[in-house]
Amino acid sequence: MSRVGDTLFFENPVHVQTWAAAVGTKEGQGPLGKCFDHVTRDNRFGKKTWEQAECRMVELACEAALSKADLTLSRIDCALGGDLLNQCISTGFAARGLGLPYLGLYGACSTMAESLILGATMVSGGFAGRTLCMASSHFCSAERQYRYPLEYGGQRPPTAQWTATACGAAVLSSDQGPVRITAATPGRVYDPGITDSTNMGAAMAQSAYETLRTFFRDSGTLPQEYDLIVTGDLAAIGRSIVVELFRQDGVELGDRYQDCGMLLYDEDQDAHAGASGCGCSAAVLCGRLLPDLAEGKLKKVLFCGTGAMMSPTSSNQGESIPGICHLVRLEGCV
Amino acid sequence: MSRVGDTLFFENPVHVQTWAAAVGTKEGQGPLGKCFDHVTRDNRFGKKTWEQAECRMVELACEAALSKADLTLSRIDCALGGDLLNQCISTGFAARGLGLPYLGLYGACSTMAESLILGATMVSGGFAGRTLCMASSHFCSAERQYRYPLEYGGQRPPTAQWTATACGAAVLSSDQGPVRITAATPGRVYDPGITDSTNMGAAMAQSAYETLRTFFRDSGTLPQEYDLIVTGDLAAIGRSIVVELFRQDGVELGDRYQDCGMLLYDEDQDAHAGASGCGCSAAVLCGRLLPDLAEGKLKKVLFCGTGAMMSPTSSNQGESIPGICHLVRLEGCV
Repeated sequence: MSRVGDTLFFENPVHVQTWAAAVGTKEGQGPLGKCFDHVTRDNRFGKKTWEQAECRMVELACEAALSKADLTLSRIDCALGGDLLNQCISTGFAARGLGLPYLGLYGACSTMAESLILGATMVSGGFAGRTLCMASSHFCSAERQYRYPLEYGGQRPPTAQWTATACGAAVLSSDQGPVRITAATPGRVYDPGITDSTNMGAAMAQSAYETLRTFFRDSGTLPQEYDLIVTGDLAAIGRSIVVELFRQDGVELGDRYQDCGMLLYDEDQDAHAGASGCGCSAAVLCGRLLPDLAEGKLKKVLFCGTGAMMSPTSSNQGESIPGICHLVRLEGCV
Repeated sequence: MSRVGDTLFFENPVHVQTWAAAVGTKEGQGPLGKCFDHVTRDNRFGKKTWEQAECRMVELACEAALSKADLTLSRIDCALGGDLLNQCISTGFAARGLGLPYLGLYGACSTMAESLILGATMVSGGFAGRTLCMASSHFCSAERQYRYPLEYGGQRPPTAQWTATACGAAVLSSDQGPVRITAATPGRVYDPGITDSTNMGAAMAQSAYETLRTFFRDSGTLPQEYDLIVTGDLAAIGRSIVVELFRQDGVELGDRYQDCGMLLYDEDQDAHAGASGCGCSAAVLCGRLLPDLAEGKLKKVLFCGTGAMMSPTSSNQGESIPGICHLVRLEGCV
């Protein structure tokens, strides 16, 4: 409950009590495939449309997160989340099924980090005992909406990222849990002037750099104090820009800096620059980072959700792509 | 900083320090025309596209709100807001210009109430000294996106609402101010099964009823304790459903219950069932309700933002329209 610069410090403890990830078939075949709670064999998740499939995936991730901690929905005070679809319908329709008080968010691919920040604020401030934080994306619903219907078979440039079919859901609580959220930095919007919507990593990289720099200044900590600094999802091109921007400041991030967009797929999975989509960082968080923090394999992690705040309309109108990055500091309680 | 049922009570004071509304030409010709800080004579706000116009309107509302209280942007810790456009581009691009930490929201036409809830949570919890809360909509950008381009000249059924060209912006602060936020109820999603997207008032009415009923139960207060209960924006059809639902419970809401969608236009302005859009309730709040509270004309108001969480895609797929309603209790400090 204090603030330095742009950074919030959660002195009233906020714990991540339980979490889960539900993903598509391709994500299940990638290097983190075994980490996810639900890997579908049917990317339609038994539904008639891609949008309904994404909604079902959100429900599955939430159900899995709750059931792992023997929680019922009645124990959750508020849900916060969003997705990439117009009017955030996959999360909105999932909220209809959940029946919880619901606060819808739009932070593009930074949504998981944004939901953790606002969910933690509610818990730490005493406004909720437990919040359910979530974010999702689906390759097929995103392709149709942002680019071309799958049937068109459009070519993808090497800079393009692959929207992950994935959802992560995490329950924050004032009760003791295996991982703590100790600080967070809501990001500002930066726009380096990139107009190519197949090169979003480059558009978001400056935001990641600025939010990280702000956090280090506000917290008085250094990159080497963290086991892992992870952006999501700049992919290969955006990550290399962040590395270079810090290098110009005389800071070598080294291997402790990774990107969720480069963790989800193997190189031979033909995902070009890497993964993207709200669900990418959400699923890497809930499938890999939170378990590693809970088991003591990681002690201190900076989870930095990155988002490109454009739409097909703004791109068609010649606008450049504004980027944003929200940071959350996670610490294992082992 | 306490919670009863779904309702948050802000015991650490949250004041509305300053506010402003910027609106389009038609809204300026309506009954509240003189209440607004900026009435444009050019619905393009000097820009080339409707989307850029909406973004400029957001900037104008924020600038007006800050300048009325001699505040600079550096005194604001965080901005929260959203709009109706795909990927919320008008607020996202406005946030680029503001340069503030930004948390994007999507609550359809409930967004202003949602931003007040989360902005108040940050202030009351000690995470921000001041938050800037905002929501906007523009008739022309919304028509093209949700229905038909203006040039098509599509017919509108009598149940249809008119998306307001309007933006409201309010600064919440822990410092003393003329109006206080004392409680809030984040809403749950309800879906009465309406599939006609030109009848959104009916789709949202149940949500308004449920959130109000929850609030009265949680707060132990009665409708007659409030000078004004205002939903936004159910318009004529939705309002009559809320009146009837309360009547079935033996509660007569009477004239103290109004709807923002019925306050913005005169009957001869050809807006059919009334106004809608995020900007409608935001502009009525910032143009009329907050000034009346500050001047003592109103003492206690329940501001209930209502949203229809559908998209053209979900409607085309035959989905019904889920509704949501977020409630904020405002009290004058005179």
